[in-house]
Amino acid sequence: PDDQYPTRVNGHPAMLRRPDPVVWPGPDGTPVPGPIDNDILTSYDAKGFLTIPGLLSAEEVQEFRAELNRLVEDPEVVNDERTIVEKGSRRVRSIFEVHKISPKIAALARDERVLDRARQLLGSEVYIHQSRINYMPGFRGKGFYWHSDFETWHAEDGMPAMRAVSISIALTDNYPYNGGLMIMPGSHRTFVSCVGETPADHYRESLKEQEIGTPDEDSLSVLAARYGIEQFTGPAGSALMFDSNCMHGSGSNITPFPRSNIFIVFNSVENALVSPFSAPSPRPPFIAAREVEPVRR
Amino acid sequence: PDDQYPTRVNGHPAMLRRPDPVVWPGPDGTPVPGPIDNDILTSYDAKGFLTIPGLLSAEEVQEFRAELNRLVEDPEVVNDERTIVEKGSRRVRSIFEVHKISPKIAALARDERVLDRARQLLGSEVYIHQSRINYMPGFRGKGFYWHSDFETWHAEDGMPAMRAVSISIALTDNYPYNGGLMIMPGSHRTFVSCVGETPADHYRESLKEQEIGTPDEDSLSVLAARYGIEQFTGPAGSALMFDSNCMHGSGSNITPFPRSNIFIVFNSVENALVSPFSAPSPRPPFIAAREVEPVRR
Repeated sequence: PDDQYPTRVNGHPAMLRRPDPVVWPGPDGTPVPGPIDNDILTSYDAKGFLTIPGLLSAEEVQEFRAELNRLVEDPEVVNDERTIVEKGSRRVRSIFEVHKISPKIAALARDERVLDRARQLLGSEVYIHQSRINYMPGFRGKGFYWHSDFETWHAEDGMPAMRAVSISIALTDNYPYNGGLMIMPGSHRTFVSCVGETPADHYRESLKEQEIGTPDEDSLSVLAARYGIEQFTGPAGSALMFDSNCMHGSGSNITPFPRSNIFIVFNSVENALVSPFSAPSPRPPFIAAREVEPVRR
Repeated sequence: PDDQYPTRVNGHPAMLRRPDPVVWPGPDGTPVPGPIDNDILTSYDAKGFLTIPGLLSAEEVQEFRAELNRLVEDPEVVNDERTIVEKGSRRVRSIFEVHKISPKIAALARDERVLDRARQLLGSEVYIHQSRINYMPGFRGKGFYWHSDFETWHAEDGMPAMRAVSISIALTDNYPYNGGLMIMPGSHRTFVSCVGETPADHYRESLKEQEIGTPDEDSLSVLAARYGIEQFTGPAGSALMFDSNCMHGSGSNITPFPRSNIFIVFNSVENALVSPFSAPSPRPPFIAAREVEPVRR
């Protein structure tokens, strides 16, 4: 009844204005201090994302790459239900809840460079809604169609408000042509209500290719014409933080240059999940944590 | 026996050095004059391509767009065997031999801005080996995997030497993210011999998705590491001319911005087709003209 973001309930799509703030004030109503300076904060508010060149040093990039290589070669990890493998090759594409599998990645989530930025943007203590590492192979990387993460988290996980932020930390160089993330700056202010009904166990397919919860072409055309498209490019070690409702996607990657990154979604402890708004049952906790465990240094 | 560019004949791929020149001298052994200045000619020789910003004026772009719209709505054209339509939607993706269908495009091929550049690069009179218009839709444009056009023209059409040049004239804006052409500068000096055997009537499938005649991943990795990748971007009306042996491809296009272009391949009249080097029979003449009809103003 008091669903601010109805989706997958009507036969027609809609574009709704976002009532939630983008940079959330703290408990006393004033901004929460942190490492993001005012100009960048203002830009994040307007565009819905910010980049952090060189978040990781070259040495750290090497360490995390080694950690990723260790993980994808560990048979226990490969056979874990939280690991998504390609149908044919059985190669690892993603490992979910990776902060509970790798102490090194857990430490990164607690690192002040990451955690303090998330707290500053969300105006509160935060917990990890989802974490994963992603591998997009060269030559045949498939990409992801346009979507708002929040649309899925709201419909399928029961996230009430737009008070979550994702950080993607590149472990490989991002070029304009190897399937990196595209984002429509400013699109985070519009909620695109999608058509369709969520089937049971939808997540098993949707992690590989999104269909339900896909924005309609008319809305995408309006957003692209109004906001344009930006690409997240830069050397390994760069990071992108983006609001939960940014319209984003990625094209295919036929280049020989693979892509891998670490992906952590922080949600405000004030925004704990409730029942899904448009799905028969919530997704498993390794995709959408249902326990609020504040991340502390 | 005197095949300089063997392909699709061995069980293993190979990288062969190109003996043919890139900028061909004229009949008397000296350069053929033309509109391309020396610096650009030198760069074309080194990289295998050149761009012509603003080849068409904004007004001409509008005229050619109108011509394209007229063609794709003409039922006779849509049902022509030279027109390639998408399986599901029946939408037109390409129209081949379009210079024989549209007098306006025939005139463009004769235009001194186009024709004199082709003559200058190929060092002789030229004829049209292939022409087409291409439409890549927004949202679901599929892209083309890496390939050298010459590999196909040699194997399937019987083109003896690397003495052909393609011009792609953009009728829509090319961004780095809407499936535009990627090219490896310098790759035109290496012939990547491919594995596999050409089946009969291969062209019916290969126009939609290339499989036979596909370069191996090792060779592509070597070329990409050595030469890098450049993208052809720029506003509608810009043109790209590229050597027949450039390694090129394109990614998918999920953006709302479609792409269309006019594509003309000029071959030297001194380089007339012979029997295919690696196929049971030649492709139809609307894909690879077998009559040498010099283009004259």
